[in-house]
Amino acid sequence: MTDPRDKVSQAVLLTTADDTEASFYDAMQHADLERMMHVWADDEDIACVHPGGPRVVGTVAVRAGFEAVFSGGPVHVTIEHVRRMETAVCAVHHVTEKVQAVDAKGQLQTAFVMATNVYLRTSQGWRMVAHHASPGMGQDLPDITEPRGVLH
Amino acid sequence: MTDPRDKVSQAVLLTTADDTEASFYDAMQHADLERMMHVWADDEDIACVHPGGPRVVGTVAVRAGFEAVFSGGPVHVTIEHVRRMETAVCAVHHVTEKVQAVDAKGQLQTAFVMATNVYLRTSQGWRMVAHHASPGMGQDLPDITEPRGVLH
Repeated sequence: MTDPRDKVSQAVLLTTADDTEASFYDAMQHADLERMMHVWADDEDIACVHPGGPRVVGTVAVRAGFEAVFSGGPVHVTIEHVRRMETAVCAVHHVTEKVQAVDAKGQLQTAFVMATNVYLRTSQGWRMVAHHASPGMGQDLPDITEPRGVLH
Repeated sequence: MTDPRDKVSQAVLLTTADDTEASFYDAMQHADLERMMHVWADDEDIACVHPGGPRVVGTVAVRAGFEAVFSGGPVHVTIEHVRRMETAVCAVHHVTEKVQAVDAKGQLQTAFVMATNVYLRTSQGWRMVAHHASPGMGQDLPDITEPRGVLH
């Protein structure tokens, strides 16, 4: 199933946290479990919170979690409002995921998910170590960057 | 209001990410806004997601957000199940917050909140740069660390 050249191109792509993030969402869009797991650090302490789900910890459980997600097919997700806080070895990205799916009535539904993605620079390139997604909302809440409106 | 010795002790306390995390929850328990803001990096890219709320970005907005939280008084929060992924300069902690409050009927209510806390080592010690909390749940969901049970 896997073309060895894919693995090479995947490795090359993880030279920045942005590359790794792009691979993460590309894997979601293609329900590509191998690509997804290549994005993550191979570490028993990686952790993933899917929207509304429990915390999933370690490569075996994270893999099983995405396998379950991908059993439903590709996830139509794009990201918006990417905010980055980066150092030489660590990157924290805050994104809003726009997820679209057709419901049982054939209607296109859209949900917005706030997610925090954390990447570390490793000897295998930038790898994801944490993904924390809040439950989806029906609308895209704007970030609060000024004191005004925090409570409203 | 502020004893200068407190500032010294606060600075000394941030020598590890665990110290900084302890200060974060201590500030919550005492509704201490100055201590809370001492925990955070002084950076326009820090980001905080309170349970069920929007993303709050930057020191000014984060401060205003906690000021609003603390206007209701101390937050009775303790943390459980702390998981740590740490490097020399970056720490990612996954915690479950147990939050207790008395409702309008005088009943003690307990909620469990999954949170991801990210810390960076700075010249001013370990500082929080991200806090992402999911909406509270009525029960403490165990972490999934084995493939079995991911979907159940």
